[in-house]
Amino acid sequence: MEFNPHWVSGFVDGEGTFYVGIYKNPTLKSGYQVLPEFRIVQHQKDIQLLHGLKSFFNSGVVRKNHEDRFELRIRNFEALKNIVLPLFNKYPLMSKKRFDFIKFCSIIQMMEKKAHLEKNGIIQIIEIASKMNRGNKPKASAIKEKLETG
Amino acid sequence: MEFNPHWVSGFVDGEGTFYVGIYKNPTLKSGYQVLPEFRIVQHQKDIQLLHGLKSFFNSGVVRKNHEDRFELRIRNFEALKNIVLPLFNKYPLMSKKRFDFIKFCSIIQMMEKKAHLEKNGIIQIIEIASKMNRGNKPKASAIKEKLETG
Repeated sequence: MEFNPHWVSGFVDGEGTFYVGIYKNPTLKSGYQVLPEFRIVQHQKDIQLLHGLKSFFNSGVVRKNHEDRFELRIRNFEALKNIVLPLFNKYPLMSKKRFDFIKFCSIIQMMEKKAHLEKNGIIQIIEIASKMNRGNKPKASAIKEKLETG
Repeated sequence: MEFNPHWVSGFVDGEGTFYVGIYKNPTLKSGYQVLPEFRIVQHQKDIQLLHGLKSFFNSGVVRKNHEDRFELRIRNFEALKNIVLPLFNKYPLMSKKRFDFIKFCSIIQMMEKKAHLEKNGIIQIIEIASKMNRGNKPKASAIKEKLETG
């Protein structure tokens, strides 16, 4: 399967998700782990397409999402920074999803500067992440409050 | 908004639908009307994207789909034949949706030859259409049976 990068941009505008998970992790100084991920979910009939896109991005894993759906998920930080971000900067998304992508980029850049290892950085990241997608808003507010008062 | 045609192909692979409706119409010789349509459904937050795509295809109408979703719908036969079909022939779909597109093309070609105006043509069209999307299968079988025995 050969993909034109503009095609990938269009497909991701429809089917892709830029997500930043924030998970409690007492082994870390900040108390929380920040886990950005990019995923594309498809019905199992198009699992070959996910494998093709995995080759295109040269990273990620194809795994079960839910019931008859599968996903290509990229969590590797270097791959996100060096492959995913440059791709969608060069071949821009056209839908409102581009605003999620912009927030995703800013979190990746903050992580690159190790901001997520400090309490203040985590608070900023949570604030940005809570405005993405349909947002983990209640959970994000709870974490943020805990960090600010903690 | 400027769209790269590869982007449109990718976006439609995710968000587009090729559909052929078959509707009872006693004013027609065959008793049924065949209505092919191409549509792209989006959440209302991306209604501007649908208007942009309407300009790109130079056809169609942006209308409410369901609740907070809107669609660009193209039903005009000339636009389907002269704009939509050539586009996805030149910039191919990559997902299994391409098989719906192939069936859609064959129905458009049959209609171009007026096959849908005769009983035999309608039966063939219903047979192809019933294998598209998740299919109008029970309804299609019922119409087909009625036509064959009628």
